Amino acid sequence: MNTRPTNNGSEQKELFIKMVLMAWDIHVDRTNKILAELTDEQLAAETSGGKNTGIYLLGHLTAVHDRMISLLGFGERRFAGLDSLFVSSPDKSGFTFPPVTELRKYWNETNTSLSEYFTQMGTDEWFDRHNAVSDQDFAAEPHRNKLNLLINRTNHLSYHLGQLIYLK
Amino acid sequence: MNTRPTNNGSEQKELFIKMVLMAWDIHVDRTNKILAELTDEQLAAETSGGKNTGIYLLGHLTAVHDRMISLLGFGERRFAGLDSLFVSSPDKSGFTFPPVTELRKYWNETNTSLSEYFTQMGTDEWFDRHNAVSDQDFAAEPHRNKLNLLINRTNHLSYHLGQLIYLK
Repeated sequence: MNTRPTNNGSEQKELFIKMVLMAWDIHVDRTNKILAELTDEQLAAETSGGKNTGIYLLGHLTAVHDRMISLLGFGERRFAGLDSLFVSSPDKSGFTFPPVTELRKYWNETNTSLSEYFTQMGTDEWFDRHNAVSDQDFAAEPHRNKLNLLINRTNHLSYHLGQLIYLK
Repeated sequence: MNTRPTNNGSEQKELFIKMVLMAWDIHVDRTNKILAELTDEQLAAETSGGKNTGIYLLGHLTAVHDRMISLLGFGERRFAGLDSLFVSSPDKSGFTFPPVTELRKYWNETNTSLSEYFTQMGTDEWFDRHNAVSDQDFAAEPHRNKLNLLINRTNHLSYHLGQLIYLK
């Protein structure tokens, strides 16, 4: 039995997109499951002594995922205001964070939007450059495509998921 | 300027492999950098109150990476004895762990071996099934290939890297 996929460019691409999207979905689902189990009070605690709180990580992940909307060319991101609180500033910056209930909502809305955009994307689009790389750089480094951004963001989510789990 | 890769099966596959291998390499390098910065005493500490120690995570990651050698069909794994300590048992099991200096050595040797095997692999081999999936299951789910295992293990490493960083 030949179990190898045929040497067909389009079929290969679809298989690869599926692999990357499955990894993304699994990690978003895992994060949602943990967030659902954590109370707002638990989220306010530090994930380790002196380290980031769950609220900060939730804001950070939301800001980073929201930014993917513009990086992947889906349109205007919605929560750019979170960057100054959760990306360019560390936790305990003294800035007032939005209420956790709001952050939970932004998080869910952002990932739902991303999922919808993903299903509308054509196979070839995934292999186009994302908006953080120039045309010139992309010509020399064609691996810096939209799918690669999703691989990297999945690893980023996984990294912080390993920290959020400590709040349980 | 057409910056899209051509619709060539083999070229596409090489691009995917590069994307996945780059993410793997980046995360192994980051882990090595953190491990180099941590003393053996720091590694003995808990990454968060009551949670896994750095030593346990080092043993766990080494065991999981060592197992990749057999799952990817590269031959016999070398450190199967670590599984009972670091995979099937939690931290503080009461079992005696190998000295940290030995674990650091196993970790480095394992990732060096994997790197060497990776460079020897043919493009098509990455799209073959890995040894934790049957021929029958693979026929129905061709995404469960060796490259997909590497995507998943990179996320696994990233997850624990987010915890190891707390020892700094």
